Amino acid sequence: MTENIIVLNDLKDSKGITLLKDEKSIFCIVKSQIGIDEANELIQLIKKEPNKDIITQTISSIKYNKLIKLNNQQTSYEINVMKPQNIQEINKYKKQQYELFLETPELYQQYTLPYISTIPSSTLQWINDYSNDITKPLLKGDGFFLVPDVKWNMKDMNLFYGICFSKDPSILSIRSLRQCHLPLLKRMRFEVLKYINSITGLKEEEIVIYCHYHPSFWHFHVHFTSINFPTLARNNSIGKAILLDTIIQNIELDDLYYSKASIMISIGTAHQLYDKFNQTK
Amino acid sequence: MTENIIVLNDLKDSKGITLLKDEKSIFCIVKSQIGIDEANELIQLIKKEPNKDIITQTISSIKYNKLIKLNNQQTSYEINVMKPQNIQEINKYKKQQYELFLETPELYQQYTLPYISTIPSSTLQWINDYSNDITKPLLKGDGFFLVPDVKWNMKDMNLFYGICFSKDPSILSIRSLRQCHLPLLKRMRFEVLKYINSITGLKEEEIVIYCHYHPSFWHFHVHFTSINFPTLARNNSIGKAILLDTIIQNIELDDLYYSKASIMISIGTAHQLYDKFNQTK
Repeated sequence: MTENIIVLNDLKDSKGITLLKDEKSIFCIVKSQIGIDEANELIQLIKKEPNKDIITQTISSIKYNKLIKLNNQQTSYEINVMKPQNIQEINKYKKQQYELFLETPELYQQYTLPYISTIPSSTLQWINDYSNDITKPLLKGDGFFLVPDVKWNMKDMNLFYGICFSKDPSILSIRSLRQCHLPLLKRMRFEVLKYINSITGLKEEEIVIYCHYHPSFWHFHVHFTSINFPTLARNNSIGKAILLDTIIQNIELDDLYYSKASIMISIGTAHQLYDKFNQTK
Repeated sequence: MTENIIVLNDLKDSKGITLLKDEKSIFCIVKSQIGIDEANELIQLIKKEPNKDIITQTISSIKYNKLIKLNNQQTSYEINVMKPQNIQEINKYKKQQYELFLETPELYQQYTLPYISTIPSSTLQWINDYSNDITKPLLKGDGFFLVPDVKWNMKDMNLFYGICFSKDPSILSIRSLRQCHLPLLKRMRFEVLKYINSITGLKEEEIVIYCHYHPSFWHFHVHFTSINFPTLARNNSIGKAILLDTIIQNIELDDLYYSKASIMISIGTAHQLYDKFNQTK
């Protein structure tokens, strides 16, 4: 029954409830993880009635909300079914160990830049489509454009998640930033916050603005995420994300801050760069 | 039945499983949150047999692991029961909205420093107990000592979580750090990593070393957390945590970096400083 199924990952984060009883005792209760048999039963239910209980459907994924009655209790499950196009997409969902490395400017030149040059430009085609007006962005500005993040459903306005791209493909990442880019960074910050406020009502204090380093795409972009976005904590850890305000301040202090800095990065053991960085220790 | 129970927080993080079926479809399945009735049943079970299924017990908390059979399925629950001593401890567990503010050096002088002076010194007594050898620390060094974090059970070595305190109480936080503190910071980093490796086998790349700003205790300390620690993502977000390597680099660049910096902080709406910072917008 479960022979063709490979467990990619058990999500270990807690799912529970915290209660205060009689103003004396705090109870934190965390439920067990889902077993493969329970998961398989749900997959069989979806196969029987593939169009039932769909919440959202896109080209690449279908999201279900299934309510199952067991004994006297109802349990609801959120199920996201995706059709991966290549091995990289499957790898992204695999459980892997992450490790921290300090990327010096020398290691960036020696390993990271050559690695970037091996990435096929076709993976950036969707960014070019926005840049060339083939796909309509949310907002167009002087030197930048804002697109919705794929994780945002564009319906829950309180959970806004957008990505603001520089139009200039020569800015690969924060490593490329100099004082000459400060006007662009400040325009992005000001205009995107104004736009988010106009469509969602969210205030500046409710938006986390940050860059990933290493980024997923080596074409400079800034994340604008609602502080309420469910997976925010996983996306904005130190060793992975840096606040835009910190970046602006550091470049103002020193034009060459990000070309001279040793930057802590986290690399998964399945990543092509892992062995290179691990050898240097 | 549930009338004396107040729900402090629903933990919304996902608890689920990711599966690959027939190498074609990825299924992510997330279970529903626990309802208050289900939680109440578990509390009644504990009250009936208070000493059964205890995993760990400390002065302030008891941790249970309960396995319940419903229909043909067994569900296991982790239950942590705590006896809070004051309203601050209860507030920490309350669901609240967090917002981001840029704390300028002026705002630090005007609001944060006066707030720090109102905190009763009794809340730091446990740190003094370690410092005065009343409680034995894990490691004593030149100008610092290492203690286990309360969240670590001291059994799962792969999940190491320790806090390294400066012996000097005049260093309130990263805001107080100057170049004269660099030798202390580097000793902490080097000696604590060596100690962790000797008792756990964990490598430098597997330990995240960071400071919180604002910290929970205004007596300078550094977190050393295994990259595998379950709640790490919640503890090391940007706007809350800063890597020790970044701190060292910034002080090396500019002696006054952290006294001149505007630092992004996240404040909960229930915090005493929230209204002060919110007024300044």
